[in-house]
Amino acid sequence: MHYPLPLARLIEGFQKLPGIGPKTATRLAFHTLKMKEDDLRDLAEALLSVKRDLKTCSICHHVTDEDLCPICRDPARDRSTILVVEESKDVMAMEKMKEYRGLYHVLGGVISPLEGVGPEQLTIKPLLERLKDETIKEVIIATNPSIDGEATAVYLSRLIKPSGIRTTRIAYGVPVGGDLEYADEVTLAKAVEGRREY
Amino acid sequence: MHYPLPLARLIEGFQKLPGIGPKTATRLAFHTLKMKEDDLRDLAEALLSVKRDLKTCSICHHVTDEDLCPICRDPARDRSTILVVEESKDVMAMEKMKEYRGLYHVLGGVISPLEGVGPEQLTIKPLLERLKDETIKEVIIATNPSIDGEATAVYLSRLIKPSGIRTTRIAYGVPVGGDLEYADEVTLAKAVEGRREY
Repeated sequence: MHYPLPLARLIEGFQKLPGIGPKTATRLAFHTLKMKEDDLRDLAEALLSVKRDLKTCSICHHVTDEDLCPICRDPARDRSTILVVEESKDVMAMEKMKEYRGLYHVLGGVISPLEGVGPEQLTIKPLLERLKDETIKEVIIATNPSIDGEATAVYLSRLIKPSGIRTTRIAYGVPVGGDLEYADEVTLAKAVEGRREY
Repeated sequence: MHYPLPLARLIEGFQKLPGIGPKTATRLAFHTLKMKEDDLRDLAEALLSVKRDLKTCSICHHVTDEDLCPICRDPARDRSTILVVEESKDVMAMEKMKEYRGLYHVLGGVISPLEGVGPEQLTIKPLLERLKDETIKEVIIATNPSIDGEATAVYLSRLIKPSGIRTTRIAYGVPVGGDLEYADEVTLAKAVEGRREY
């Protein structure tokens, strides 16, 4: 039994999305048959709009629909600190905590020799350009605690330190409200390593 | 922190799909930023095509891109039996088993007073029309074993039986390869109720 072509194409299309296998894709595709035509058109239009209307901020490379992102445009932000993250979604996560008032820099990934990603594919050169501005006093590196994320953090810190700008790494440890029992051993090791004096 | 409009619209659009909440929708939306433009265009086009190019078979109401579905067109199918299902995806599931060689009838849902679905919103009238054809000897009702599915099955059987056509319900019980221990009590009750003599 073959699916009619329009349905088969949609099932294939959904499978290009992360975490969506053939079963889920089929379920989603059948669901669209019952959706309002307007909702389908809105979703299709939004998919097309993402590449057409979004760009990255010309200062921090965060995703935006204008030339500068709202954070770089905001005069109330502290311009002496830059927090370096891998992806735009990490900026969103950081902004949710509403504590950090400095600026960001989105690398666009991490250095990964296995995946053929070198420093030149990331926004490292523009970051170093930004650091020539003397108002910048600290760079906080917040790449993920993965092997590539750690290696990228070390690489960046070595590039930045000679400039005399304070270079820090965010703390990794047991999550607040978490239970020691459920923390994996790498997290526990990081938590012990990152211990602080009372 | 607000998302740029194109991203916000896409997150909203993804949430119209079943089983996709705000978190998954956000993850999918951010992933599209890294997708090839061609893949995005294909997915958007497939979403539009589903409503535009698909219709239901004029005999059995199964989803198709032609006037008659491949099953109704197939001269090798047994025209004496009609298996009644709720949705087109149920036809696909049945066809996967490759055992059933008769025809289908897709109701388009089940009678559900709570959701305001009455018999007239389903393809019950066209089903009764089909049964006027004397080649039809049996109607197998395969609605889901939910409350509404059962009620719809009983409703249909009462409509069809007076015509003298054999009316049956598929068996519900413990799945083959399943373990009694993991079967819920309703399934177990159905399995006992549907027991057969050796």
